[in-house]
Amino acid sequence: MAELDDLKERLRSFAAARDWEQFHTPKNLAMALVAEAAEVVEHFQWLTGAESQQLDPATRAEIALELADVLLYLVMLADNLDIDLADVAHRKINLNEKRFPPPARPEQKP
Amino acid sequence: MAELDDLKERLRSFAAARDWEQFHTPKNLAMALVAEAAEVVEHFQWLTGAESQQLDPATRAEIALELADVLLYLVMLADNLDIDLADVAHRKINLNEKRFPPPARPEQKP
Amino acid sequence: MAELDDLKERLRSFAAARDWEQFHTPKNLAMALVAEAAEVVEHFQWLTGAESQQLDPATRAEIALELADVLLYLVMLADNLDIDLADVAHRKINLNEKRFPPPARPEQKP
Amino acid sequence: MAELDDLKERLRSFAAARDWEQFHTPKNLAMALVAEAAEVVEHFQWLTGAESQQLDPATRAEIALELADVLLYLVMLADNLDIDLADVAHRKINLNEKRFPPPARPEQKP
Repeated sequence: MAELDDLKERLRSFAAARDWEQFHTPKNLAMALVAEAAEVVEHFQWLTGAESQQLDPATRAEIALELADVLLYLVMLADNLDIDLADVAHRKINLNEKRFPPPARPEQKP
Repeated sequence: MAELDDLKERLRSFAAARDWEQFHTPKNLAMALVAEAAEVVEHFQWLTGAESQQLDPATRAEIALELADVLLYLVMLADNLDIDLADVAHRKINLNEKRFPPPARPEQKP
Repeated sequence: MAELDDLKERLRSFAAARDWEQFHTPKNLAMALVAEAAEVVEHFQWLTGAESQQLDPATRAEIALELADVLLYLVMLADNLDIDLADVAHRKINLNEKRFPPPARPEQKP
Repeated sequence: MAELDDLKERLRSFAAARDWEQFHTPKNLAMALVAEAAEVVEHFQWLTGAESQQLDPATRAEIALELADVLLYLVMLADNLDIDLADVAHRKINLNEKRFPPPARPEQKP
């Protein structure tokens, strides 16, 4: 069963039960998306790259919930625009593979 | 098969083939995440809510690829922090269900 | 006396007194800048355009302080990169004036 | 003469000459603000903190224009909400001074 479809269904029910669909225009969801992405950034802004790789468990747990928020708004926005997220993500990787060809591997000595 | 794990595996291979793991600290990935989320916002900033619901196909296709970018960086960041995105997304919906209980439905007259 | 220089001087003293210059790399300040800008966005994400023009005084006062945060990080970042903000802002308006010429005014009937 | 008022006046004339005031709701300007802040972030996302302090002149010139964009939207947003940016920035520094008292200086030996 598709994980993203699963989330999409739960989020549809959640919004419907609260009569929140009226607020979920693509414009508004895009704003919520960037606001949540920025909350992720806030956790890292004063850390060095190395420190960002050694988070204490409490901070990591908080960040996990911020990442969840980003995913939830992303799924709602894609749903609203009738975009298949998994499909377009694979298409984007395909494009990136053409745009950034991997460096040639050195010949293997026999 | 899990969609998010699928993407995670492709992204790991993609980064490894280009020796890009060195750039993928959580701090840097968080920056890339917010930058991509803001590119989504840019498409909507001068539209009304109603206009944002009636995109022409070309704009919609561009936005789809921006949403893909957000998802790709989100998956990489979660992978880097060893966070299970689908799991934490469901936990976050659970929390939201408690935090925002749906309004009581009016009693149905018999 | 230049307002932006004034702020720059106060912010330099503030950081120096707390030994915070070490955290104020351009990279980190750019992260703080976007995080603060997103806090502004958060206030507006569920409002219509019209509602955003009719804020209650308490919300407006909160947003004022968020705008202040954006300005403070912007001044710090510009200072760190030795960029004259007022000067480059005027240069950018000059560029925009060329890029977006105003529509010709209709001839006035005599 | 106040730098920020100067910019405010030029931006008012710029928008009026193009009949763009209709797009400049606080909601829309907040979106433009975060989009521009994220363009600043994009320049720094793959750099180390140290690299971000040693930009080549071309990159620095590009970033200067991005900072200008942030300032211009900030000034427009503040104008639209009738907020005095310089005043609130000083008030915010005052608040920060109380919130983060500087560490006591060690006693000077006589």
